[in-house]
Amino acid sequence: MQDANRLDMQISIDFNNMMERFVGEHGIGDDELNEFIEKNADIAQRVNETRDNTRWRELPYNQETVVNRILEIAESVRKNYHSFVVLGIGGSALGPIAVQKALNHLRYNELSDDLRRGPKLYIEDNIDPERIRSLFDVIDIKRTMFNVITKSGSTSETMAQLLLITYMLRNCLGDNWANHVIATTDEHKGNLVKIARQFGITTLYVPDGVGGRFSELSPVGLLPAAVCGIDIKSLLDGAAYMDKLCSVDDPQKNPAFMLAALECISMKKGCNISVMMPYADSLKEMADWYAQLWAESLGKLYDKEGCVVRTGQTPVKALGVTDQHSQIQLYAEGPFDKVITFLAVDQYRALMDIPNAYDDIPDVAFLSGHTFNELIDVERRATEYALMKSRHMSKTITLPMVNEFTIGQLMMLLELQTAYAGGILNIDAFDQPGVEEGKNATYALLGKPGYEEKALELKNMPKKMKEYML
Amino acid sequence: MQDANRLDMQISIDFNNMMERFVGEHGIGDDELNEFIEKNADIAQRVNETRDNTRWRELPYNQETVVNRILEIAESVRKNYHSFVVLGIGGSALGPIAVQKALNHLRYNELSDDLRRGPKLYIEDNIDPERIRSLFDVIDIKRTMFNVITKSGSTSETMAQLLLITYMLRNCLGDNWANHVIATTDEHKGNLVKIARQFGITTLYVPDGVGGRFSELSPVGLLPAAVCGIDIKSLLDGAAYMDKLCSVDDPQKNPAFMLAALECISMKKGCNISVMMPYADSLKEMADWYAQLWAESLGKLYDKEGCVVRTGQTPVKALGVTDQHSQIQLYAEGPFDKVITFLAVDQYRALMDIPNAYDDIPDVAFLSGHTFNELIDVERRATEYALMKSRHMSKTITLPMVNEFTIGQLMMLLELQTAYAGGILNIDAFDQPGVEEGKNATYALLGKPGYEEKALELKNMPKKMKEYML
Repeated sequence: MQDANRLDMQISIDFNNMMERFVGEHGIGDDELNEFIEKNADIAQRVNETRDNTRWRELPYNQETVVNRILEIAESVRKNYHSFVVLGIGGSALGPIAVQKALNHLRYNELSDDLRRGPKLYIEDNIDPERIRSLFDVIDIKRTMFNVITKSGSTSETMAQLLLITYMLRNCLGDNWANHVIATTDEHKGNLVKIARQFGITTLYVPDGVGGRFSELSPVGLLPAAVCGIDIKSLLDGAAYMDKLCSVDDPQKNPAFMLAALECISMKKGCNISVMMPYADSLKEMADWYAQLWAESLGKLYDKEGCVVRTGQTPVKALGVTDQHSQIQLYAEGPFDKVITFLAVDQYRALMDIPNAYDDIPDVAFLSGHTFNELIDVERRATEYALMKSRHMSKTITLPMVNEFTIGQLMMLLELQTAYAGGILNIDAFDQPGVEEGKNATYALLGKPGYEEKALELKNMPKKMKEYML
Repeated sequence: MQDANRLDMQISIDFNNMMERFVGEHGIGDDELNEFIEKNADIAQRVNETRDNTRWRELPYNQETVVNRILEIAESVRKNYHSFVVLGIGGSALGPIAVQKALNHLRYNELSDDLRRGPKLYIEDNIDPERIRSLFDVIDIKRTMFNVITKSGSTSETMAQLLLITYMLRNCLGDNWANHVIATTDEHKGNLVKIARQFGITTLYVPDGVGGRFSELSPVGLLPAAVCGIDIKSLLDGAAYMDKLCSVDDPQKNPAFMLAALECISMKKGCNISVMMPYADSLKEMADWYAQLWAESLGKLYDKEGCVVRTGQTPVKALGVTDQHSQIQLYAEGPFDKVITFLAVDQYRALMDIPNAYDDIPDVAFLSGHTFNELIDVERRATEYALMKSRHMSKTITLPMVNEFTIGQLMMLLELQTAYAGGILNIDAFDQPGVEEGKNATYALLGKPGYEEKALELKNMPKKMKEYML
């Protein structure tokens, strides 16, 4: 892309409505902001120094070889398969879902074969038996490629799915079954890489230092995207562009740092809820992806010194304009406990007129002659205005258009924001120790060897009281 | 249904993990609960007296005639149309979406015509031009019935959609266009009923005293459900069953009252966040429907005496087990600011085995021989246990199975819970004054006659500062 075009496609941020000047006492004062920035001015640099956990930042630059391999694999899948099923959960699913929804037709799987840009895509991130069964009602497994994604190779949900499809594929394809599987996992350790080697399964690797929720721009996300015809080079290009924008020395000019600072100040002001509200159906799942990134990275009991901090802001997903008719009543009249981030789009990829009719009914006719594009834009601005008037903080991230280059930017922006927020809060943004208890209890309840003690603990837990049941 | 079968299909509630005895200091003490119940013992009765706003409670009993008419219309649609498109937003969409997802195949629209129980269903609750255009890539409008739902007939989004499809239908069908539209609206007032009469459009009515978010069991929800082959009589039967369960004199035996009480106590304890986490893909959209019900009903600036209370608990939607890999880290280690409601299912409508394979890898092989049904159940119990250990309040609503009878129960239960919570908080749970500002600003920005003053106000709003932009 030409440099001028890149500039036209640069994501912008407007945080006027975070500020006291606009929303009054519940907003951020100029001095407050400046002091906060000064105090945390070295965060970006400090985060960069934690290299072992921030290798995802290098993904836009160090994947030339693997990108070419992914494109080759994708080409072959596109030619030979009718469906592509991702088996994965959490970071292995949310990124692929968000990118597919943003960059492909909104009803991709329902398009006829000639209109679709690639095989049908199914991202199976749950183990609900009804959902699993329903998948086999709509795919023909002989014409399906399965992409099993788990870095550790020990994710119970994904490995259970692998057991199922191994059995099913073997049943109908015999020894040829392994050709219908691609593994995306750690290169050096874990069960999945072992299985893949044993059966000659095509394998892509999740690089070291790239945790699940930061892995979308690695083979985890790139292969499903490429299979569905998404331009992954442009996606990485966008991520690189944002990485450069966030590499300036002046923290006030670093958009990810500023977003992190604003969010952390809002937390200090009692906003324990952070709403992301895209005004575009294509970005709805981006809010889901971000919800994991933000919740798992910042929801922490201890800080880096081991002191109990019990921090974390709860992400909430909303959709404009839809949720104006569901959540805005609460946002406008409810407590000052949330900060809202609108995702706006300047130019939608379709132009839809609102035609004339019912000219004798002024209450309807005033809409005629406008476009749906105007209507959604006006409603977003009206909502922003109404929230400002009710003195609630909000900010807007604007994408000039939804395309590979802007989505790459957005994801890198939010990943860096998250990493910086972790730095500001002085916590480890890259681990998730809080999920261990549940995992271990699951192992114990399933009778996994080595978890006998936990099983005993569960057996001896306090009996439930009948009086607390209805 | 036989009485014994009904009892087997009765929803149950377990709130052990809300209580101090189980989760410690952040839980609810026995005395605390008893005092609260005593203080609010007359709430159920007081809510019943606000008849004008609670006519939705009568829907299971007073719709015999209209149900038969709906079944007739549905039969004709099923025979003659390939797609059924709902045009509506908020309460006109969230209920139909939730019921369809709960009670039909999880990939209904992707099933072949012979496997599907009715026409394809599209519920269009946004005005994103990309989404609107994408609809016309997958439907054949000559074979499509449009159901326009707006009680007031003045919902801009829905009326703009109506303008569009009027134009498109006229273009391809001429005067016959009105046969492809069914209106669901107020019988006596508003633009839609006027238009319907003018053009002879088939019309169903939303009864008085049934607000948008409480309208699923009225023609708003019943027609789309019936068109897709859902047994609406059984849905209403379930609602009636729950209504009776909640009509007992003893508040402690009234499940909706107890749920409302527990939620309101949690609010007093600082839980401004309420998570609904179904362990079933079929119930995922039920959490969306509930999010509107809870947010719009309880997010209020004033109490009934006109004092500023700025109340409201923010609903958050999560999905088990999926979001264990996204949100549980935050729920377990983060602040004591949330209460979690699990939706559990005893018996899924599919049984899926986890087959044998990879016997030489114990870390994977331990899963074999179990079922996905066991796995999802064990993971839910493990998560409940882990949250109890980390001292967070949770409760579980269990559906013996997901079917029309239990979904009817669940919706009535949550509607009553919401109405009671409004009573406990002493607010009007049935209005939504906080959305007016945004609506008026939208009208003003679109140049609607009568909004000149608001337009001037918007024109004179403080100019945005460049320094707050990036």
